[in-house]
Amino acid sequence: MVDILHRVGVKGSSPDDVYAALTTIEGLSGWWTRDTTGKPDDVGGVTAFRFVPGGFDMKVVELAPGNRVLWEVVEGPAEWVGTHVNFELSQADDFTIVLFEHRGWTEPAEFMHHCSTKWGSYLLSLKQLLETGTGAPAPDDVQISDWH
Amino acid sequence: MVDILHRVGVKGSSPDDVYAALTTIEGLSGWWTRDTTGKPDDVGGVTAFRFVPGGFDMKVVELAPGNRVLWEVVEGPAEWVGTHVNFELSQADDFTIVLFEHRGWTEPAEFMHHCSTKWGSYLLSLKQLLETGTGAPAPDDVQISDWH
Repeated sequence: MVDILHRVGVKGSSPDDVYAALTTIEGLSGWWTRDTTGKPDDVGGVTAFRFVPGGFDMKVVELAPGNRVLWEVVEGPAEWVGTHVNFELSQADDFTIVLFEHRGWTEPAEFMHHCSTKWGSYLLSLKQLLETGTGAPAPDDVQISDWH
Repeated sequence: MVDILHRVGVKGSSPDDVYAALTTIEGLSGWWTRDTTGKPDDVGGVTAFRFVPGGFDMKVVELAPGNRVLWEVVEGPAEWVGTHVNFELSQADDFTIVLFEHRGWTEPAEFMHHCSTKWGSYLLSLKQLLETGTGAPAPDDVQISDWH
């Protein structure tokens, strides 16, 4: 099992603000993909995130307001199904720290390398959304390669 | 042992161009840190990369022009010393694909999460340097958190 790890800090924000960006349609569609529908604020609820080439359905496994959001991937590319996406939030002075883990990849294939860079870019979009009011969600996301 | 993985694609470039950006002072100082000195084009040579809070000395372990660059970290933060940084280059249509691995971390501590996001950001700086002529090396790099 191999994991994707990231850490960003959102300046001038609170863990509650970041938590809202991870658990509301408005928040999620502002930094990950505009095509977001579902129930991101209910444990057991499923949210569909769609991109031009496809997408992911995430089931909420755990919610701890201002502290933690844990999803399980229930639909999507074979490499993603059954993996878990975890956001841990904490405060450090004027920053809200987001510790991100996409855990449980079976093997470190080229697609996982791509997803790691892409997650980093989307987490900077989350930071940008909260700091400036405007993120860079799909389809207006940063192009990192031939795979988008 | 845990690894940081990334994949970016540099448009309108060749593996030889990207290789030059990984093995010359001019190239490396254009995307990673302006304070770069040493011998990045000699196997066994050591290059010193310095940032405001400190830096890393990398020994070149393997060079395969247009294809591969492998470094060993010989000085720097304890978590980095002894780890390996590997760049694999290949061509895919109009893109040069960079598969990046920073391998051999002892544990997935918070600092590793930070370095993962930071490497992704620097690899996008490498892409930007080659595509536009201007990267974002330290000290003008993208701030991702309270840790810079």
